[in-house]
Amino acid sequence: MQRRDFFKRAGAASLALGAGAAGIGTAQAKTDYKWKMVTTWPKNFPGLGTGANRLAALIGEMSGGRIRVKVYGAKELVPAFEVFDAVAQGTAEMGHGAAYYWKGKSEVTQFFSTVPFGMTAQEMNGWLYHGGGLELWTELYARFGLIPFPAGNSGVQMGGWFNKEIKSIADLQGLKMRIPGLGGEILKRAGGTPVNLPGGELFTSLQTGAIDATEWVGPYNDLAFGLYKAAKYYYYPGFHEPGTTLEAMVNRAAFEALPADLQAIVRNACKVVNQDMLAEYTARNPVALRTLIEQHGVALRPYPDDVIVKLKRLAEEVVSELARKDDFSRKVSASYRKFLRESREWSRVSELAYLQARDRD
Amino acid sequence: MQRRDFFKRAGAASLALGAGAAGIGTAQAKTDYKWKMVTTWPKNFPGLGTGANRLAALIGEMSGGRIRVKVYGAKELVPAFEVFDAVAQGTAEMGHGAAYYWKGKSEVTQFFSTVPFGMTAQEMNGWLYHGGGLELWTELYARFGLIPFPAGNSGVQMGGWFNKEIKSIADLQGLKMRIPGLGGEILKRAGGTPVNLPGGELFTSLQTGAIDATEWVGPYNDLAFGLYKAAKYYYYPGFHEPGTTLEAMVNRAAFEALPADLQAIVRNACKVVNQDMLAEYTARNPVALRTLIEQHGVALRPYPDDVIVKLKRLAEEVVSELARKDDFSRKVSASYRKFLRESREWSRVSELAYLQARDRD
Repeated sequence: MQRRDFFKRAGAASLALGAGAAGIGTAQAKTDYKWKMVTTWPKNFPGLGTGANRLAALIGEMSGGRIRVKVYGAKELVPAFEVFDAVAQGTAEMGHGAAYYWKGKSEVTQFFSTVPFGMTAQEMNGWLYHGGGLELWTELYARFGLIPFPAGNSGVQMGGWFNKEIKSIADLQGLKMRIPGLGGEILKRAGGTPVNLPGGELFTSLQTGAIDATEWVGPYNDLAFGLYKAAKYYYYPGFHEPGTTLEAMVNRAAFEALPADLQAIVRNACKVVNQDMLAEYTARNPVALRTLIEQHGVALRPYPDDVIVKLKRLAEEVVSELARKDDFSRKVSASYRKFLRESREWSRVSELAYLQARDRD
Repeated sequence: MQRRDFFKRAGAASLALGAGAAGIGTAQAKTDYKWKMVTTWPKNFPGLGTGANRLAALIGEMSGGRIRVKVYGAKELVPAFEVFDAVAQGTAEMGHGAAYYWKGKSEVTQFFSTVPFGMTAQEMNGWLYHGGGLELWTELYARFGLIPFPAGNSGVQMGGWFNKEIKSIADLQGLKMRIPGLGGEILKRAGGTPVNLPGGELFTSLQTGAIDATEWVGPYNDLAFGLYKAAKYYYYPGFHEPGTTLEAMVNRAAFEALPADLQAIVRNACKVVNQDMLAEYTARNPVALRTLIEQHGVALRPYPDDVIVKLKRLAEEVVSELARKDDFSRKVSASYRKFLRESREWSRVSELAYLQARDRD
């Protein structure tokens, strides 16, 4: 007999046995945990917001409704950039965002989202799950009463939207661009002015000229925001975000209050979404890119080689300085860079060698 | 109160209410489903066998022990290549293997594991989960009373182990090589003799000269089998297996007997392992490759460009013919090739463009 049926029948039978036993029969349908998930994304935003929705739905399905997670878009309960504090303080049990948004808490958070000229999505998963990365991230977030879980990945992002062509590094001079995290620091050293804005404010900022340029994610998301209406040139590759890991964070006390099976369900639902979001971007980006080019006349441009070489040099400076901030940064950086060094060698024999072979005609 | 505690207390209380109610109290600790998982791998084999173990463990953890899955290595219950039939017939509820092993059942299975010069791991996930691939696979396996789930990925594999250098396509003439699936058909057209053998038989076959060459997976697994002791040259990239999806298959009747929450747990445990195995290979392969080269004197070689170009032409022939076998093959092939065509364009702007930029100094 199936357990579900067993409880249904037991529940019916127990009605005859008095109130105590009836309680047992109805416990199956009861929601034991009602959680809130605050997010840094506009509600239902493709990929990011829908990924958060999927995470909540998965937890509900796998737990048979024992945990119900209600998802809030940015500003619905708290503003995008207050998600971290809201979950740390227990205003919500769970949050969905990206670790580099919290560099004000600790600059080292940036290693857990993405590093310019760093690891791809696949490499990030290797480092986080099997290279010690997630242990370090967990150690960091424990200071704030939070537990982090990788919960999404955008894959290689696009370089961004510009109103002029980038022909040399000098073209970045004086440029006011929305670009968060370490990418922003690189822009600053190239003479530009980095700005951090939540996604929902990008289009208006770009269209009103409050910013000159912006990066966001990739074709699928950039199309959804209509960024092509405010800028013409679309640059690649997104050297500054080669495989951005999104995060779910859980209030530690809330997590520890769960029985072991529900903890396993929450942890693994995050893993499922971590993969699923990347799969979704991988399926949607190619189609969206074609739409942008063919229907909206977007001009696709590669960063010139010498711009890439210069940006890479600046990136090395920025990442090295970050690594020297304190002991913990040194530890995280050493782990990240060792993994990256080995992965670069392996990618020359695997991913890179293969993609080049496939492109040969 | 936590549900677990609730049942514990309810169980204790119900002892006073007689046998019927006591049954409700103890149901929580009961294992409702005892499943067997047969696999095509040697028991505990790194990556593949341990992936199957992890899948079983995850199902146990997330279900709080309501399903227990016992894993059997190849030959423990049935031989490697009888896994498909064993699960179809209900000898075991679940199996772990790779779809191209079942080309004797239907040649189109090969699209669901890997296609020479086809999709990478990330692209396979895009196609399977968000591009209609898994629906087609599900349709195919339904004929056999099975439900397929992607449950692991090796990433880009290596080309294989050879006792001589491959300087031109003529060097493949007369070569007896273990290479299953479509890769084997390509070798055949290049004048070689493909052989399909389970992993556990590779080392002995290569060492005794029963075969001249073999491919298996990549550095992590090839090191574990000691293949370097039987051949010197290690070629890349694995054009024939650019991102092989492993599979879990579940007996349809067994799956349908589960309540909805346990079905969700089985389905999502497979998703977790699908990602986790790739992450593990991504972390282990770089280290194993270095060990093979530095400690065992393995000679790493790229396939020469003109060999790649010729193999690619043969691959196109082979895949086109497979696509024309019957209506269902046409449907699967059309779906696969459309996704691949779009992904190739996108990878030139994302993954490939980025990996090239990262390698620039």
